[in-house]
Amino acid sequence: MLKIAILGCGRIGQMHAANIAQHPKADLAMVYDVYHPYAEMTATRHGVSIASTASDVFASIEVDAVLVATTTDTHADFIEMAVEASKPILCEKPIDLSLDRVNACAAKIVGTDVPIQLGFNRRFDPGHRAARNAVVNGDIGDLHQVIITSRDPDMPPRSYYETAGGLLRDMTIHDFDLARFMLGDEPSEVFAMGGGLIDPKMMTDLEDLDTAMIIMQTADGKQCHINNSRTAGYGYDQRVELLGTKGMVQSENKKEHEVRRFSSTQTETCAPYLNFFIERYKEAFNAEIDAFVTAITTGSKPEVGFEDGRRALMLAEAAYLSISQKRSVRIEEVG
Amino acid sequence: MLKIAILGCGRIGQMHAANIAQHPKADLAMVYDVYHPYAEMTATRHGVSIASTASDVFASIEVDAVLVATTTDTHADFIEMAVEASKPILCEKPIDLSLDRVNACAAKIVGTDVPIQLGFNRRFDPGHRAARNAVVNGDIGDLHQVIITSRDPDMPPRSYYETAGGLLRDMTIHDFDLARFMLGDEPSEVFAMGGGLIDPKMMTDLEDLDTAMIIMQTADGKQCHINNSRTAGYGYDQRVELLGTKGMVQSENKKEHEVRRFSSTQTETCAPYLNFFIERYKEAFNAEIDAFVTAITTGSKPEVGFEDGRRALMLAEAAYLSISQKRSVRIEEVG
Amino acid sequence: MLKIAILGCGRIGQMHAANIAQHPKADLAMVYDVYHPYAEMTATRHGVSIASTASDVFASIEVDAVLVATTTDTHADFIEMAVEASKPILCEKPIDLSLDRVNACAAKIVGTDVPIQLGFNRRFDPGHRAARNAVVNGDIGDLHQVIITSRDPDMPPRSYYETAGGLLRDMTIHDFDLARFMLGDEPSEVFAMGGGLIDPKMMTDLEDLDTAMIIMQTADGKQCHINNSRTAGYGYDQRVELLGTKGMVQSENKKEHEVRRFSSTQTETCAPYLNFFIERYKEAFNAEIDAFVTAITTGSKPEVGFEDGRRALMLAEAAYLSISQKRSVRIEEVG
Amino acid sequence: MLKIAILGCGRIGQMHAANIAQHPKADLAMVYDVYHPYAEMTATRHGVSIASTASDVFASIEVDAVLVATTTDTHADFIEMAVEASKPILCEKPIDLSLDRVNACAAKIVGTDVPIQLGFNRRFDPGHRAARNAVVNGDIGDLHQVIITSRDPDMPPRSYYETAGGLLRDMTIHDFDLARFMLGDEPSEVFAMGGGLIDPKMMTDLEDLDTAMIIMQTADGKQCHINNSRTAGYGYDQRVELLGTKGMVQSENKKEHEVRRFSSTQTETCAPYLNFFIERYKEAFNAEIDAFVTAITTGSKPEVGFEDGRRALMLAEAAYLSISQKRSVRIEEVG
Repeated sequence: MLKIAILGCGRIGQMHAANIAQHPKADLAMVYDVYHPYAEMTATRHGVSIASTASDVFASIEVDAVLVATTTDTHADFIEMAVEASKPILCEKPIDLSLDRVNACAAKIVGTDVPIQLGFNRRFDPGHRAARNAVVNGDIGDLHQVIITSRDPDMPPRSYYETAGGLLRDMTIHDFDLARFMLGDEPSEVFAMGGGLIDPKMMTDLEDLDTAMIIMQTADGKQCHINNSRTAGYGYDQRVELLGTKGMVQSENKKEHEVRRFSSTQTETCAPYLNFFIERYKEAFNAEIDAFVTAITTGSKPEVGFEDGRRALMLAEAAYLSISQKRSVRIEEVG
Repeated sequence: MLKIAILGCGRIGQMHAANIAQHPKADLAMVYDVYHPYAEMTATRHGVSIASTASDVFASIEVDAVLVATTTDTHADFIEMAVEASKPILCEKPIDLSLDRVNACAAKIVGTDVPIQLGFNRRFDPGHRAARNAVVNGDIGDLHQVIITSRDPDMPPRSYYETAGGLLRDMTIHDFDLARFMLGDEPSEVFAMGGGLIDPKMMTDLEDLDTAMIIMQTADGKQCHINNSRTAGYGYDQRVELLGTKGMVQSENKKEHEVRRFSSTQTETCAPYLNFFIERYKEAFNAEIDAFVTAITTGSKPEVGFEDGRRALMLAEAAYLSISQKRSVRIEEVG
Repeated sequence: MLKIAILGCGRIGQMHAANIAQHPKADLAMVYDVYHPYAEMTATRHGVSIASTASDVFASIEVDAVLVATTTDTHADFIEMAVEASKPILCEKPIDLSLDRVNACAAKIVGTDVPIQLGFNRRFDPGHRAARNAVVNGDIGDLHQVIITSRDPDMPPRSYYETAGGLLRDMTIHDFDLARFMLGDEPSEVFAMGGGLIDPKMMTDLEDLDTAMIIMQTADGKQCHINNSRTAGYGYDQRVELLGTKGMVQSENKKEHEVRRFSSTQTETCAPYLNFFIERYKEAFNAEIDAFVTAITTGSKPEVGFEDGRRALMLAEAAYLSISQKRSVRIEEVG
Repeated sequence: MLKIAILGCGRIGQMHAANIAQHPKADLAMVYDVYHPYAEMTATRHGVSIASTASDVFASIEVDAVLVATTTDTHADFIEMAVEASKPILCEKPIDLSLDRVNACAAKIVGTDVPIQLGFNRRFDPGHRAARNAVVNGDIGDLHQVIITSRDPDMPPRSYYETAGGLLRDMTIHDFDLARFMLGDEPSEVFAMGGGLIDPKMMTDLEDLDTAMIIMQTADGKQCHINNSRTAGYGYDQRVELLGTKGMVQSENKKEHEVRRFSSTQTETCAPYLNFFIERYKEAFNAEIDAFVTAITTGSKPEVGFEDGRRALMLAEAAYLSISQKRSVRIEEVG
């Protein structure tokens, strides 16, 4: 059994703890959270010990690997500590809000063979993966266009916005990674538009966006569109569409159940979409843990690693530059 | 934590064992199977002990309740033993293949307040339940028609057929129970037709059916249709449709994922349906365990009990009588 | 151009008149209706003459063929007149409400080679036909089960009920014909249940039904279910499902347009179904005329003729007998 | 009856001729085509006369209005002639491939009250219109995002490409108009990307595009995405999605019929999409004629006129400029 420690026992950390506890080849080793009650709640639930400091976790011989679900500002430090301690790490996205910090981290860990996996859970969603596999298997011929729809159900509170680092680094970062996964290639050029349509005043105050549209293309011309909204009145909307020369494949939303209703005013009405990401991507989060365990136990490189996290952030930076300069930005410009 | 023992560690027993192990308010107490390797496999997986005999299970003070997933011919005995030992029991369907034996069992346990729950898992499916709730909430007005489609993906082997007790007692029994649940009432009259369309020779040899259609009505005229097939080339097909004065509700099939494919010959092609019952009714099996635990811990009567098992078997008997006499059969005739 | 006269210029006759007028190989020849204003309205719209009597129509050398959309009690007479006048006839269903009258008519026209087509429009619906073709082409293997759902949007007024001849002869007659078309075979045995669930008092008064369920089987065991309701709160519901050894095909409802709506309480809500039969079966009614014109001009036998009308009525009679005697009825019994 | 003449009797002109002939308030007056056999074929079919020259049509007192379906290079001339002759005109899109020519035409006809309708048929599609109405009625709250998917089924031949005027002026022009219709507002800023992915060599030769993505925003920040492909292997794909603060509405594709197929490898497979625009937008083309007739007979301004055609072309020009300069282009820049 692979013994995995959790750093960060908030909502996402707790979910990961439960997933690790249920995994047939992994055990929860210990937990840590700077806010002690969270650590205690998770430790009690799973009958494991609480580390006093993060350093203790990395030093412990009872820990084979670590999962980091702390605040973003600690991610790069923990990745460096994990590499130093030779402990495989599964780190939540993003690596950091600053590309400089990410690049510094990259320089520090260069050449390491310690497995580092980034928490881009959406790649592991069975539907999204089946869509990508349709491309890989040649089912739709050569890929030409990728359309990613990614909308949150509700506007987060101002406090969340204040520390999240901006829509494109916090939310769209998932879509940038998904775009790279679906394209099987690097976007080389980015065009973006965004604004404050849901809460214009707050967005102006915070210099942030709540609604955005992006188009990108790869060096050989494949095109990708991402649309984002912080609030979709009908639920959490997560779709991917892939157009190829021979056909199309769509990965659609998941519902609470498969009931359809019919009345005098409507037909075939379906249940609400699964809401929110913990429910919608439940299978993906489990598959993500499984991929991490498999990578470590088989000695293979994680499917989605540090460089993927860095690339997604570069796309976010390019998109911000595009918005401010109202022009297409080449990825090298933010390298 | 409620300590539940498992009797019968075949495919279904193993699934129940895993569900109990994961339940936040229940623990697996011990296991038993007449075929020792099955008991051992399940005991090892969950780190519990193996009982030498079924009687030991009922006698054990470490056992708060039992789940019976043994062969059908043992169910009635185990129900009687559970009542005698005052241990709540969740027993797989059917109670017995003989209505006489079921009635004898009923007579023996009459007046007991030991909780007895029957394994009619489909009542607990979120979709089916939401459909029924639409009726209860008045969303579709007065209920007039119920249509149940229930088709297995593949013909079981001859050996299965030889002991299963006949299509209507083994497979349709679920649909008879679901019909009663959806109608919220007792069917009073049954018409049935059936034959051997998939494997006519085997069906003739075994005097069994592989394909059937049934219509039923309640005393106040509500109508219900069930169609069954032992093999639906496209997967496990489990649907319920409810027609009321104000509208309709359908509980549809569940798919592997929500991917749609488009090519030169087809559009909106969906993934295969979840196959087989353990996958399709995964949530239902968990909810069934949860309902059992809740009934015991809150002292309430299980939602679906012995009498439901007896009623479903009566409908099966009525349907057989209808097929042989080519007439409508009233439920009292088989009482 | 084939010159077709219309007998009966009510709602359905007017629709047929417009369809004939638009057909590239047919012209409207003249019209007749016992109620003169209807004849006048239709004649004016299409610039054709009005016949004084039905006999004049059959006698006219300007008429190549007749379409009969008069009241049911005149159909058999007009069929006999058409045969006598050697004018091909497309006659609305049913031939008559009395099987004796139908048989008498059959005896009178026996051996005729005058083309007689019955107005079973649903056979010509592109969706229903594609479903049947899937069977014919072997796409779903051997056919085992047919499920026909046929529900009207609204309860007709008492006056309609008083002359319609009973649910099974008036409404289900279409489904009996569709069952025969889909089975590609004759049902040999019929079980039926029915009652007054929508308007129990009126149904009791008129000894009629507003809700019914039927199961039938062919000599070689193929099964068919029909469910009917005089009022489906969500619109006109017309579906066919065919189960075979290799797969299934469903012909579903048609909507006003392909818009889907999403809000906080529902997803993927579709538009109302096309309502009523003139809208829903628009393409079918046109294809029916086209088939009639083609049969006449190519000298081939109409796809759906007198015997089909007689057989559908026999199934209705068998179903009534089944309801009254609460038993399965063999088709020979009503022959 | 409004007497409408057709200029241009190619495929689209013939379709319009048939639609006019069937319209209850309009008659086909006469036809003209520079290629005489086309004129003859259409004239014969509808029993109308052939004009020797386009001028004769505009001069004829038997002509109340004209429908122009000739080649693009004649549109502006005919619009000017129609205004001079005071004949209402329904002109196919685009007005011209040159914005200068369009502006010159605008200057020439400035102040006219002769009804001019542009052939942006998609606005009249029942589904697209219902989607727009959902916004107008407030069903989805404030509109934030519009997503238009517009893909042709097959790559047109090189000869078509050589005269069509470029993807954005020929094909996307429809989507630019639809964007304006759906937004209920003017896009003020355009970003575009495009390339030759289907036939890179031909696109390079002709300096044209076969695949494109565009994002636009209005002055108040509403966003719109258009994606185009000259070949969608699965058929003609025409979708619109509207996101608002309270919900979403989608106008989806139309199929040949509503049959769903199920086999061992797939479920819920639908029929191919209607292919091509004459079939897919059949109702829209009829509604377009009806709107033209209504505008003329009621003296109201056509819903979609000259300025709409000019605006759509401006968006195309802005998009071309964006592609060449890799920057966002403001609509004023191409004014």
